[in-house]
Amino acid sequence: MKILVINPNLTQAITEAVTQVARSSASSGTEIVAVTGTFGPEVIASRAENALAAHGVLELAARHVKDCNAVILGVSLDSGLYALRELLDVPVVGMTEAALHAASLLATRVAVLTFGARLVPLYEDLAREHGVAARVVRVAALPFAPTEAFTDRQRVRDALRERCCGLVQADGAEAIVLAGAAFAGMRKAVQADVPVPLIDGIETAVPLAEALVRLAYPKARTGSLSHPGARAAAGLSPELTALLSRRG
Amino acid sequence: MKILVINPNLTQAITEAVTQVARSSASSGTEIVAVTGTFGPEVIASRAENALAAHGVLELAARHVKDCNAVILGVSLDSGLYALRELLDVPVVGMTEAALHAASLLATRVAVLTFGARLVPLYEDLAREHGVAARVVRVAALPFAPTEAFTDRQRVRDALRERCCGLVQADGAEAIVLAGAAFAGMRKAVQADVPVPLIDGIETAVPLAEALVRLAYPKARTGSLSHPGARAAAGLSPELTALLSRRG
Amino acid sequence: MKILVINPNLTQAITEAVTQVARSSASSGTEIVAVTGTFGPEVIASRAENALAAHGVLELAARHVKDCNAVILGVSLDSGLYALRELLDVPVVGMTEAALHAASLLATRVAVLTFGARLVPLYEDLAREHGVAARVVRVAALPFAPTEAFTDRQRVRDALRERCCGLVQADGAEAIVLAGAAFAGMRKAVQADVPVPLIDGIETAVPLAEALVRLAYPKARTGSLSHPGARAAAGLSPELTALLSRRG
Amino acid sequence: MKILVINPNLTQAITEAVTQVARSSASSGTEIVAVTGTFGPEVIASRAENALAAHGVLELAARHVKDCNAVILGVSLDSGLYALRELLDVPVVGMTEAALHAASLLATRVAVLTFGARLVPLYEDLAREHGVAARVVRVAALPFAPTEAFTDRQRVRDALRERCCGLVQADGAEAIVLAGAAFAGMRKAVQADVPVPLIDGIETAVPLAEALVRLAYPKARTGSLSHPGARAAAGLSPELTALLSRRG
Amino acid sequence: MKILVINPNLTQAITEAVTQVARSSASSGTEIVAVTGTFGPEVIASRAENALAAHGVLELAARHVKDCNAVILGVSLDSGLYALRELLDVPVVGMTEAALHAASLLATRVAVLTFGARLVPLYEDLAREHGVAARVVRVAALPFAPTEAFTDRQRVRDALRERCCGLVQADGAEAIVLAGAAFAGMRKAVQADVPVPLIDGIETAVPLAEALVRLAYPKARTGSLSHPGARAAAGLSPELTALLSRRG
Amino acid sequence: MKILVINPNLTQAITEAVTQVARSSASSGTEIVAVTGTFGPEVIASRAENALAAHGVLELAARHVKDCNAVILGVSLDSGLYALRELLDVPVVGMTEAALHAASLLATRVAVLTFGARLVPLYEDLAREHGVAARVVRVAALPFAPTEAFTDRQRVRDALRERCCGLVQADGAEAIVLAGAAFAGMRKAVQADVPVPLIDGIETAVPLAEALVRLAYPKARTGSLSHPGARAAAGLSPELTALLSRRG
Repeated sequence: MKILVINPNLTQAITEAVTQVARSSASSGTEIVAVTGTFGPEVIASRAENALAAHGVLELAARHVKDCNAVILGVSLDSGLYALRELLDVPVVGMTEAALHAASLLATRVAVLTFGARLVPLYEDLAREHGVAARVVRVAALPFAPTEAFTDRQRVRDALRERCCGLVQADGAEAIVLAGAAFAGMRKAVQADVPVPLIDGIETAVPLAEALVRLAYPKARTGSLSHPGARAAAGLSPELTALLSRRG
Repeated sequence: MKILVINPNLTQAITEAVTQVARSSASSGTEIVAVTGTFGPEVIASRAENALAAHGVLELAARHVKDCNAVILGVSLDSGLYALRELLDVPVVGMTEAALHAASLLATRVAVLTFGARLVPLYEDLAREHGVAARVVRVAALPFAPTEAFTDRQRVRDALRERCCGLVQADGAEAIVLAGAAFAGMRKAVQADVPVPLIDGIETAVPLAEALVRLAYPKARTGSLSHPGARAAAGLSPELTALLSRRG
Repeated sequence: MKILVINPNLTQAITEAVTQVARSSASSGTEIVAVTGTFGPEVIASRAENALAAHGVLELAARHVKDCNAVILGVSLDSGLYALRELLDVPVVGMTEAALHAASLLATRVAVLTFGARLVPLYEDLAREHGVAARVVRVAALPFAPTEAFTDRQRVRDALRERCCGLVQADGAEAIVLAGAAFAGMRKAVQADVPVPLIDGIETAVPLAEALVRLAYPKARTGSLSHPGARAAAGLSPELTALLSRRG
Repeated sequence: MKILVINPNLTQAITEAVTQVARSSASSGTEIVAVTGTFGPEVIASRAENALAAHGVLELAARHVKDCNAVILGVSLDSGLYALRELLDVPVVGMTEAALHAASLLATRVAVLTFGARLVPLYEDLAREHGVAARVVRVAALPFAPTEAFTDRQRVRDALRERCCGLVQADGAEAIVLAGAAFAGMRKAVQADVPVPLIDGIETAVPLAEALVRLAYPKARTGSLSHPGARAAAGLSPELTALLSRRG
Repeated sequence: MKILVINPNLTQAITEAVTQVARSSASSGTEIVAVTGTFGPEVIASRAENALAAHGVLELAARHVKDCNAVILGVSLDSGLYALRELLDVPVVGMTEAALHAASLLATRVAVLTFGARLVPLYEDLAREHGVAARVVRVAALPFAPTEAFTDRQRVRDALRERCCGLVQADGAEAIVLAGAAFAGMRKAVQADVPVPLIDGIETAVPLAEALVRLAYPKARTGSLSHPGARAAAGLSPELTALLSRRG
Repeated sequence: MKILVINPNLTQAITEAVTQVARSSASSGTEIVAVTGTFGPEVIASRAENALAAHGVLELAARHVKDCNAVILGVSLDSGLYALRELLDVPVVGMTEAALHAASLLATRVAVLTFGARLVPLYEDLAREHGVAARVVRVAALPFAPTEAFTDRQRVRDALRERCCGLVQADGAEAIVLAGAAFAGMRKAVQADVPVPLIDGIETAVPLAEALVRLAYPKARTGSLSHPGARAAAGLSPELTALLSRRG
């Protein structure tokens, strides 16, 4: 089985971190292929960057999905998830989506932790869009930029540990989703000090994507996630144009 | 006052129809300037097209917003609305957003009517995203493609009339939002036969945008709709790159 | 265009403050006419006073609406709003209703600030009744009586400034509705120190009412906001009796 | 124990019907006293009439509550319920409120049946205001005016029977609230033919009010239902003025 | 009238405390009969114990309901309430259910107070299951085991008093439900120091059950709370087997 | 990996059907072990039977979980799911829970189909309890008893096919959960004729349980799903007594 991991931002280091985590939770027969964005924002931490990343995700998928059995979005805002699900015949799983569903199988009160207070409403929206908002008791933010997770790892890790314990104490969180590709690989270092499970999106998305591949549900032929049919477009890559027009 | 109307799809005829309606409800001192998309989908009637249109909206705004006092999105899915609101200092109003708020000032039960059943969940999501879902009792769809509103005008108009009356009878709708740029200009022809107000997005967005310009609220300097700060990007137009990095 | 502003309480000073603010945001061609209650409570800051004010609003409208193009309720609980909307053919806009809708066009998280903790549940109900509760993250109260906004202006203003900043910091408010006619005119003095837009109900209601007048939607002929038909009543003013019976 | 039943409309026949039903479910030691409105609408079947009735309810209560142990609102829109609860020290129970709570003790899916489609949104709001909307699966209306329940009793009864069976079949109703004082006394005639319990508001309100009297909870001294304190008013009856100012 | 109070845990002391409170609010003609669990958990303070208690409740009811006019569940998680309601022809009232409905008749913001933070989500679920979650602003917990209410009565009472005042101050609670059979009898000692009504489940359930007996609604013959019909089972007591198969 | 499938009803045929489906979607290294109830109801299709089944589930798990890496509930009401999750250290997955989460990864509008109208509210509750109700647009029921799925297979299959197509057409379902162990194995026969994916609970639960085993999240040490600690009980099997007291 071959799974395509799409990181639509331009930062190769994040793609690498994400790939490493993806491989750590993949089955032995699963190959992980990862691609990085070629245009758009360097990091994705605002609505505008999220909108641009959605275009990037579609372009990357159109170019690289061939021969892949599933796609995972390696961007914690799950940019373009439902748009891509519409176009592809193979399963598409968002990393935060995966984390939220897994958390719901483990906990009745789920907290989400991200970088920067301005993203809090975006993750609240995302939980609602994914249909699981009823379980989310709190979206909280560390006062760091995602990039600091790479440049000041120890400090971010300490703040993460402390905030997680606070979410358990004050908000009754029974599981905590680490929403941010920059958290990739940080879960294990912190888990021992937190009394509830921490959920990393990429790590979780891989076995969920594998499960969907195995279950082999047919693509819906009707409804809002079916392929829209032969749609005309201009100024896009040939691959994306073909995917939209179903000539792919 | 100068208002920029953005139609991110590639269909000039829709821009023209939308502009005409916008002018019909503008104050005497208001100038309407309209622009059409330069890349992306020809029409916007799916999640993928909506995602691409959001990029288009940002590009068009970056290039044309200079000297404008407000922006109106002339696309009924309000593509990229919150992303653009984040980047600009002037008010941005979505056409369906405007219609939903106006409808809420007139009715306790609002119906939304669009083209094609696959869009129903998208407008339900949009009402939720705009915070007014509590008023929306039904999103319904005419079984036509938006383009048929231009090619088979009489038939679409008859179907519209009949469906509106049905929404009043069966769903208790007290106002009906016509969600689709292709409905532009059709409201008046049908209104006389429907016992509740029909709301056209563009027509409504213009005075709402004028009101916001007049009220001159300051742009938020914090929160999820403040400008994200100096963000780096690649492969975008110089104008959009500048807007993201605040060098605009 | 002539807009009637109704203050159903008995305090002429509030009518004057409200009128001044209304004029400040009116278009040049708009005339503002204001009336004050003739019976009922001196101030409106409880459910009982709100109920009595609703009757007062209906009486004042029946007597003064002639020749007016729209009505604005100059009472922050929007007393009797939907009852009046039912009876009149011209648009009726509540001041807090206007503020909540305008705030929704500017912010994804809206806070409401009022006078006195006992009013908090009433404004929560009001947001729900207006269909926009999904956007309201917090209703908070200054520990003052509304009258103190006139007698101890500086202290109330300082408390207002501080509480607004707290709502931004602790609750992530992206816009703040000042709910209380007694706040009229205080917005500009405080705005500079608060990083998100402050919304004054009266100031906002005027251009919204003007927009509705311009759009000239027809009155619904069916549904819960249509006129109830020829209804008999006793012990009311001749004008209100006539309005109920449609002999107006 | 003495219970005051307030019918704020002007129709003595409804007061009498309501009183008879109230007595039928009262304990042997309970005395039912009923009063009829002295001003306002003849029947209460719109928002405007409901607003006027709220004032009427406060006036009637102020004049007649002395020596009573509880008050029941004999008007199916529960007009002025929360306003009155604020002012009085004795329990106040709305007839539809009582029915909705009793229905919740018997059924997981509750339907509400009223007269006239324009009231449907009002009862939906009422269920929400009473906090029990989660149980209400459907508010439906018979196509009759309430007065026809008196003038054309057999026809209304037949329609009621048929509609109730439909609510069970099509909506899965497990109990049905008959919302309308005009239904008073009709429950028993129809119950035998309907496979789920029918709930009459007045009949239910009496034992609930008796229960609250017996439980003797103290009046809240704080919060939105505590007495607002010494409030000044003009143009009201001396009794209501006194009640507002707590000189009662 | 004879009311059966079922305490499904094995602690006779709790049955006695509960019985005493039940008798204190019963009408003169009402006989209270109480039974204690014969298998299962000693106390019920987790989901697993709640599940076992539900079986216990069914067994106890099957054995003891004969000649009783109503059943009250003397366990604050209302274990097995809806299952029992399905099987019996007489009214069944849960103690927390009763408290929540009574609180809704007195307050617009209801708090629930229990023992032990791990129960908070269970009471939040219970309020939702009972359809009244819209009124519940906070479920809070004292940091004690229920048994300490008996062994360290003074300390628990002091903590209760303080926490109740905090719920009023910080959460705007207008009534507080004491959720825990171990609180039985503690209400009166604390009420004087708390400015809003405290609601004890058992005390409230008795007059509500009496009211339902008096109203004599017929048992639903269809829907999810009707008897499921002749169901076969094995390994249960003869009485419960008979009740399931309707041979009771 | 060894997964225990628990069927708490007494019908061996259902256990066998369920086991066969479980094996069909298990990885090659996964062993499926299934157990059948030893007491309680023959089938589980009411609240009372569901309550008894929860006890049965706990007993079966206590006796058979040793050496198993995960537990799947082979009962479509997910009886006792959260109670068992509390007690065990290994993952527990409910079959309908699994189906609902998988459906949410494939569709924005999910329908649930079961046997018998009286179960509709139970599955609505279940979706809410699992936190995914926001995605569920309709719970519908075939008018058959579950047993008829075995005795009259062709007729049930035809009805299933037709009802599924109706849910797509009329309700806009984009995926349909087959909620009923009796549907086990019927999915593939019907899928070809339905344009959206059909989701079988058991089939889906197996790869989800495998994924959770692989991810190896730690058991929460606090919160409502942590083990309640050393709890005393009587009259239960030694294994369940030990599990409650953590002496297992």
